[in-house]
Amino acid sequence: MTTHRIERLRAALARAGLDALALVPGANLWYLLGLTIHPSERLAIAFIPAAGPIRVVLPALEQPRAAAEARVPVRWYPWRDDTGYEAVLRACAGDLQLGGRLGVEYTAMRLLELRAIEAVARVETIDATGLLAELRMVKDTDELAAMRAAVRAVEAGLAAAIAAIRPGVTEREIAAAWEQAMRAAGSAEPAFTTIVASGPNSANPHHTTGERQIQTGDLVILDGGARVGGYVSDITRTVAVGEIDAELRRVYEIVREANAAGVAAARPSVSGAQIDAAARSVIEQAGYGAYFIHRTGHGLGLETHEPPYLHAANRAPLPSGATFTVEPGIYLPGRGGVRIEDDVVLTDHGAERLTTFPRELIVC
Amino acid sequence: MTTHRIERLRAALARAGLDALALVPGANLWYLLGLTIHPSERLAIAFIPAAGPIRVVLPALEQPRAAAEARVPVRWYPWRDDTGYEAVLRACAGDLQLGGRLGVEYTAMRLLELRAIEAVARVETIDATGLLAELRMVKDTDELAAMRAAVRAVEAGLAAAIAAIRPGVTEREIAAAWEQAMRAAGSAEPAFTTIVASGPNSANPHHTTGERQIQTGDLVILDGGARVGGYVSDITRTVAVGEIDAELRRVYEIVREANAAGVAAARPSVSGAQIDAAARSVIEQAGYGAYFIHRTGHGLGLETHEPPYLHAANRAPLPSGATFTVEPGIYLPGRGGVRIEDDVVLTDHGAERLTTFPRELIVC
Repeated sequence: MTTHRIERLRAALARAGLDALALVPGANLWYLLGLTIHPSERLAIAFIPAAGPIRVVLPALEQPRAAAEARVPVRWYPWRDDTGYEAVLRACAGDLQLGGRLGVEYTAMRLLELRAIEAVARVETIDATGLLAELRMVKDTDELAAMRAAVRAVEAGLAAAIAAIRPGVTEREIAAAWEQAMRAAGSAEPAFTTIVASGPNSANPHHTTGERQIQTGDLVILDGGARVGGYVSDITRTVAVGEIDAELRRVYEIVREANAAGVAAARPSVSGAQIDAAARSVIEQAGYGAYFIHRTGHGLGLETHEPPYLHAANRAPLPSGATFTVEPGIYLPGRGGVRIEDDVVLTDHGAERLTTFPRELIVC
Repeated sequence: MTTHRIERLRAALARAGLDALALVPGANLWYLLGLTIHPSERLAIAFIPAAGPIRVVLPALEQPRAAAEARVPVRWYPWRDDTGYEAVLRACAGDLQLGGRLGVEYTAMRLLELRAIEAVARVETIDATGLLAELRMVKDTDELAAMRAAVRAVEAGLAAAIAAIRPGVTEREIAAAWEQAMRAAGSAEPAFTTIVASGPNSANPHHTTGERQIQTGDLVILDGGARVGGYVSDITRTVAVGEIDAELRRVYEIVREANAAGVAAARPSVSGAQIDAAARSVIEQAGYGAYFIHRTGHGLGLETHEPPYLHAANRAPLPSGATFTVEPGIYLPGRGGVRIEDDVVLTDHGAERLTTFPRELIVC
């Protein structure tokens, strides 16, 4: 499978006129070579030339595991803390005859790696984010199976989190219940820091889970993800604690309709902009457009945020097999917010929801 | 306190001849401004000029929390997904009159931010990693209190992990016991992915915790960290399961001596190289030098790996108040490994251990 991925990559490099690709630790390195090198302050770069051997510069202590993991043949260039990476990187660049147009990951490669490469080779760096995203966007059967397993784990956790909600319990305790149940259900780790945002905190889409105690009348936004076999899930539900005020109840139903409209709009060849518009127009028509302050969704796979992004500027048609979230929200500052997020896969017949947790308002 | 930090930073910028500093989400941004913006694919940059207002370009949905968190006055430049960041960044650069020598974080800033800045201003980027590390290296009383709390949490977790070890239990289950107890003891999150490496896996310093079941005769390396109040701890102990072979038993004592020698060498004005040499020479003299394949330690604070690094190339004297790990190890491929890691703070009288967990071999 990975050999096939390298072939597809090399075809894409040729189309883009790139002489080589440089990858740093992260999702692309795992996807293409099978390597799980830790991102750290220590330099590690994999070079995949348009033709010829793949060569990897890495900390010596990472080499044994990397050699065991690699799913394609690799030539290794290990370096040690006491001698540094410069000479090793220079030797690697020489063996590669590195030069010309080098594809790099704009959202992953740091100045550490860029300046190190520039010190040993004359290259023009080209953003390969789009090229790599296209390779990864369409998920195969194995990838979808992993994502379904990640959805099962996160939904088991979500059920446990909701069961833990009652007045007096803290946001942090609810997040702990979620993560514990999610791990028991097979998640290797949380895909991202679990968000439990209660009462006025729920009006902040990126609230940091804290020590606030749940109170009657709260809306509670629960947003978490699991990771199984490298692939992630990402779900949000919003629940009510006892009686909530009438406007918040109405806002809940608007967001639920917006979620449904977004999923319904996900037909073959739809663009991210069109899905965004479908969900957003429900909220705008209800008069809350100013309170939906983020995009409608993001791609999902090896990373929690990856292309395609669902916002007005993304007009490219989405391919069948793309996986992404649909997560409209309304946030009323100081009062509370609602977000309902599902994971979907685009098929030739429309969107299939991967997440199945009920979307009707749950009152705890 | 943060205002004082900005003053110290500006003095350092002046000494280094830098016109401004650009920070991306991460530890430095938290340390200097108090902001916990998530690192993500969305561009966020804080500019601290040598003189004049601090200005921050950030995703609009991050602004409410950031404004609540900021510990110094900031002018905000929010951008939205549908319009992108270019115009907002250009306006910010204009207000800053951005140009000249710009300090940046080589191990954090990505090409995303670099190329975006280069598109709106003519700057020469200078690595400010060392300058920022110097600001953060000496911990004050509050920082040390947080680190001691993180040590208490991780040691509570370690005790629970060791209590969970018996033949048939998996590495993953032991890690789960550790993380759960650590959280109950006040850790906001694991400082890094908890490592449980058993039997032959313990010969790999960066083993990924997996499904291997513990067997009698195993060495088990346990390496974990807690985070409290933003600050981390990092401890490793190696335990035996029943009777282990005589050479591994001897290796354990050599590593224990190397750990003690490293801590004893940590006197005022010592260099990282000297501490490394002290620990390493114990292992070399015992004939295992080739099997100690990493540096002796790393700085610790807001990040699990931060300067100072303890290896032969780091000859600068360490300041009183520096916090770092001392973690020699011996790894015999295919058989097993031993690592014993403590966290210490350098004082005017020598090193004080923050970690207090017993270093004698525990047999489970």
